[in-house]
Amino acid sequence: MTPVDIGKTTKAYCLITDEYLRAELNQIDIPASLRDAMQYSVFAGGKRLRACLCFAACELFGGEMQNALPFAAAIEMIHTYSLIHDDLPCMDDDDFRRNKPSNHRVFGEALATLAGDGLLSLAFEVLLKTGLSSEVAYLQRHYLAAYEVAHGAGVFGMVAGQVEDMANEGNPNAGRAELEYIQANKTGALISAAIASGAIMGGCDENELVLMRKFGLLFGRLFQLTDDLLDVEGNADVVGKTLGKDKEKKKLTYPALFGIEETKREADTLLNGAFSILNEFGGKAQYLCLLTQQLIGREY
Amino acid sequence: MTPVDIGKTTKAYCLITDEYLRAELNQIDIPASLRDAMQYSVFAGGKRLRACLCFAACELFGGEMQNALPFAAAIEMIHTYSLIHDDLPCMDDDDFRRNKPSNHRVFGEALATLAGDGLLSLAFEVLLKTGLSSEVAYLQRHYLAAYEVAHGAGVFGMVAGQVEDMANEGNPNAGRAELEYIQANKTGALISAAIASGAIMGGCDENELVLMRKFGLLFGRLFQLTDDLLDVEGNADVVGKTLGKDKEKKKLTYPALFGIEETKREADTLLNGAFSILNEFGGKAQYLCLLTQQLIGREY
Repeated sequence: MTPVDIGKTTKAYCLITDEYLRAELNQIDIPASLRDAMQYSVFAGGKRLRACLCFAACELFGGEMQNALPFAAAIEMIHTYSLIHDDLPCMDDDDFRRNKPSNHRVFGEALATLAGDGLLSLAFEVLLKTGLSSEVAYLQRHYLAAYEVAHGAGVFGMVAGQVEDMANEGNPNAGRAELEYIQANKTGALISAAIASGAIMGGCDENELVLMRKFGLLFGRLFQLTDDLLDVEGNADVVGKTLGKDKEKKKLTYPALFGIEETKREADTLLNGAFSILNEFGGKAQYLCLLTQQLIGREY
Repeated sequence: MTPVDIGKTTKAYCLITDEYLRAELNQIDIPASLRDAMQYSVFAGGKRLRACLCFAACELFGGEMQNALPFAAAIEMIHTYSLIHDDLPCMDDDDFRRNKPSNHRVFGEALATLAGDGLLSLAFEVLLKTGLSSEVAYLQRHYLAAYEVAHGAGVFGMVAGQVEDMANEGNPNAGRAELEYIQANKTGALISAAIASGAIMGGCDENELVLMRKFGLLFGRLFQLTDDLLDVEGNADVVGKTLGKDKEKKKLTYPALFGIEETKREADTLLNGAFSILNEFGGKAQYLCLLTQQLIGREY
């Protein structure tokens, strides 16, 4: 098995995603102000981590990148909408995102809210549209993958996680259960859906799908933990994390609850869990292994 | 042909929609606060006009109510999300909706924003989920109808209309073109999608679909005109229209631009256009005729 060049593969995944997103967001029938607001945040320098996971999971099962492409792009749209809404004054009230003014600071709250609504709608529109032109044999696979995305993004996933995240801000009684719920839903559910939808489009079977969802949740939690560690240890701009008012608030995080050392131990446990799943797929899972390893490698 | 009892039929449509919505919104895996906020607005006394149009269009082409049901419910969820977000302080800043405190006045802005996001997500989740269990022969029909909904709700439809509505508030240079764009998109697009998706689920052919979409846009504009007339003539609570700060703002409306008499003439023109389409379907379109007639019959 040839060793994977993670940088090169990631770059290829990002390039094809950006190209697709650019075409979808450039359509002249979208009002110019809305288009500008959506494009501003979609192309604000995100790492396209979810898109990469989606492609990698698809290729793990022998699928073509092209099959996962609408999913990778739709998930990036959904991720972006969630960031725009999270930054609103009534939510996290963040003036900056990735060292740039947040969407509502540039376009105003009304247009930011609508840019979020627009991206969420467009994500499903893209998935439904591309499904219509897919071959009949692939129809069910396509819509199962789209359902996976809807489920992960919605009231049983990401939206639920955000609700509980807000509800537990400064809650002195919140403990491990609340924290793990928030991690699994706010961060884990969409990441898991990215991986699961990619795997479905790659042609995985039911057992493999269960494994991939599980890997997704571990990856999501690990991502959140290492992100929180970066925040605590002050290297926030290395991963382009939100700066600003966030830290004044009492967000429920693993380091805040259990301390840095215990968080690092938990991260190792999650990493081992993720690797033991990926090991079942041998060398084919090399890229996903490297991507997981990178989370730990982030300078915290 | 037996004469249709419009009241009885409407009641049946509403009943089955509410039952479906109640089941979808009662699931215990949704955080309780989010569930409460979504249920508050979904069951705030809306007339289920879009659901009724969806069912009626389905039955017009010989379809079963059951086939249109997920669409009728999903569209009511989308309509409700749009009202919740429209009422937010950063948008129309309305404290009341249908004589009740608006969602954010009860649950706060953060939860109201998330309740809207949740309803939009759940609408597509429901459509994708029900598609998976539909028979293979119906798969393409189902997803074509779902695409119609996504397109009408999103950046080429309702969201675009709301953006332009906000942008033209108090704009002294706005004229007929801006007004008709807003009417067609903010109000017309989702109404048209309700009718088109119902017609698709009923088994209409391509020509019939074009007619139904056209009828939907006429119905949508007529709805908006008569709604604006009701506002002007002070019978706002007859249809449960938003009370509150709305009137202080300079919303672009047909009566504001052209006066009441010209608006009534335009309404008649739209009514005739809608009827001439429905006439092609003869007695089978009786319910839709009565529903259209009712718009004009509203006490303005």
